[in-house]
Amino acid sequence: MHKLALKVGDHVFAQWSSAIAAHLPDYQILHWNEVDDPDSVQYACVWQPEAGRLREFGGLKAIMSLAAGTDHILIDPDLPTGVPIIRIVDNTLVDRMSEYVLTQTLWLHRGMHRFAKMQRQAKWKPSFSIPASQRHIGVMGAGRLGQPTIRRLAASGFDVSVWRAGSNDIAGVRCFHGSLQLGTFLGNCDILICMLPLTNSTHGIIDRALLEQLPTGASLINVGRGEHLIESDLLRALESGHLEAAVLDVFSGEPLPPDHAFWAHDNIVITPHIASLIDPETGARALCREIVALDAGQQSNNVICRERGY
Amino acid sequence: MHKLALKVGDHVFAQWSSAIAAHLPDYQILHWNEVDDPDSVQYACVWQPEAGRLREFGGLKAIMSLAAGTDHILIDPDLPTGVPIIRIVDNTLVDRMSEYVLTQTLWLHRGMHRFAKMQRQAKWKPSFSIPASQRHIGVMGAGRLGQPTIRRLAASGFDVSVWRAGSNDIAGVRCFHGSLQLGTFLGNCDILICMLPLTNSTHGIIDRALLEQLPTGASLINVGRGEHLIESDLLRALESGHLEAAVLDVFSGEPLPPDHAFWAHDNIVITPHIASLIDPETGARALCREIVALDAGQQSNNVICRERGY
Repeated sequence: MHKLALKVGDHVFAQWSSAIAAHLPDYQILHWNEVDDPDSVQYACVWQPEAGRLREFGGLKAIMSLAAGTDHILIDPDLPTGVPIIRIVDNTLVDRMSEYVLTQTLWLHRGMHRFAKMQRQAKWKPSFSIPASQRHIGVMGAGRLGQPTIRRLAASGFDVSVWRAGSNDIAGVRCFHGSLQLGTFLGNCDILICMLPLTNSTHGIIDRALLEQLPTGASLINVGRGEHLIESDLLRALESGHLEAAVLDVFSGEPLPPDHAFWAHDNIVITPHIASLIDPETGARALCREIVALDAGQQSNNVICRERGY
Repeated sequence: MHKLALKVGDHVFAQWSSAIAAHLPDYQILHWNEVDDPDSVQYACVWQPEAGRLREFGGLKAIMSLAAGTDHILIDPDLPTGVPIIRIVDNTLVDRMSEYVLTQTLWLHRGMHRFAKMQRQAKWKPSFSIPASQRHIGVMGAGRLGQPTIRRLAASGFDVSVWRAGSNDIAGVRCFHGSLQLGTFLGNCDILICMLPLTNSTHGIIDRALLEQLPTGASLINVGRGEHLIESDLLRALESGHLEAAVLDVFSGEPLPPDHAFWAHDNIVITPHIASLIDPETGARALCREIVALDAGQQSNNVICRERGY
């Protein structure tokens, strides 16, 4: 019998466990806190493993990230070397993310944040909306989740630009690369969308200096990681009126503490990290497809580069 | 010199007037309240003309409706007979309407009304969202604005059904017809969208009996006319929990009075009739194209049927 150790939230453990068992009858699925003999485990399938824990497993074939981002694994200073880290990105994850970003982009584009405020004041004040083709959307990051999102925004008629670290372009979209072109990119963003991976070079990237380069009245959507954003700089940019609104799905501390200033802010929309929750059913299917292929001696296309961070 | 009388809101009169003048150099553009010799006017281009006024114009070639709906003209009991009523539906109007409906549908689909309430309570409670393909959207009305909207919702992956008075089908969409099939249609609507014209047979159509046929937890989007909806029946359906939320862009009295119960309702989103405002620039272009064609002796495709009401 092979063994697989699973670390997911307790409220979804049973769902994940039975979904995996259905696909991998030769595997014993172990709860993360009930692993007696770590060296006998082939796969650690994890979301936010505690630092130091993964190195206890001496016989891992791979560490499987149950999220598109792998920062939750790479943050471990004692991460075992020589074991591939593989991430699971299934299509439902991609669909949900692109749908969430489109929802929030349309919402900001149509001025719904302003109408919501007017409703609280019982104020009737019609205003024209510019066409989507005149709304400049800037997406930072163009990876497995970013690219389909970019296509979807463009298909909805928005004028989409992309900024990414690497030098490769995306067909049909205006692409900016590296730190030198960041300013030009930002200067034309009515709505800035962060879909970056969290790495050493993107940590805290959305700071005062970056926000100041956006045009006055711009808005922000963050679906990357909370650590991309310097929270106090965002609050300052909203207070000054330089930024109009922000939609945040991720936070540097989750759950967001009840006394956090973001909750009651008039120009901030908060969702509890639900932009693209991985579904246990479809997630387990994608995970097990990887494991079956690895056990059959095939290479995975989803191994991340530790040095790059994604 | 030909003459055209224009009735639009005072805040947009100058824009409309100069946009029309640019396209029709042979026409004198008269403000609705400054027409000295009504019989010398060829075209009355109107939004909500006062009852009895249009019959003062003895030489009209056509009455031009500056809105997709023509209920604001047909309501006049003294409407002159024998003059064609032509409506202006330009593409920007269509784009805006389909964009607005998509925005609100996605917003409800992703449970944003629930997250907004949780934010007010500083409550962090993640939840899965079902895929768009499992969300059943029902659109009532499939006219010039409805059909492109239906296509757009379907392209976003939603499961879309349509109910319309007439018997003709729409390719690729499940169509229900007439009063006999209304119940079957309603029974499968997670989100009901009203895009009907306002006529004698659709006045007050969204009443208690209709709402009760929706599944528990359904939501409503009304972008038709306020008079389609029995407001007290909507409030009752929301109070009882049978309906979850409503997004309303149109009201039986506009502007919505400041003391109206809708404003402060937790489960109602209000926008001030902005789903598809007609843009003076593009609207004037479409209007003038019609007038030039009519003056050249061509038939218009946009003459409405008075008896049918659209």
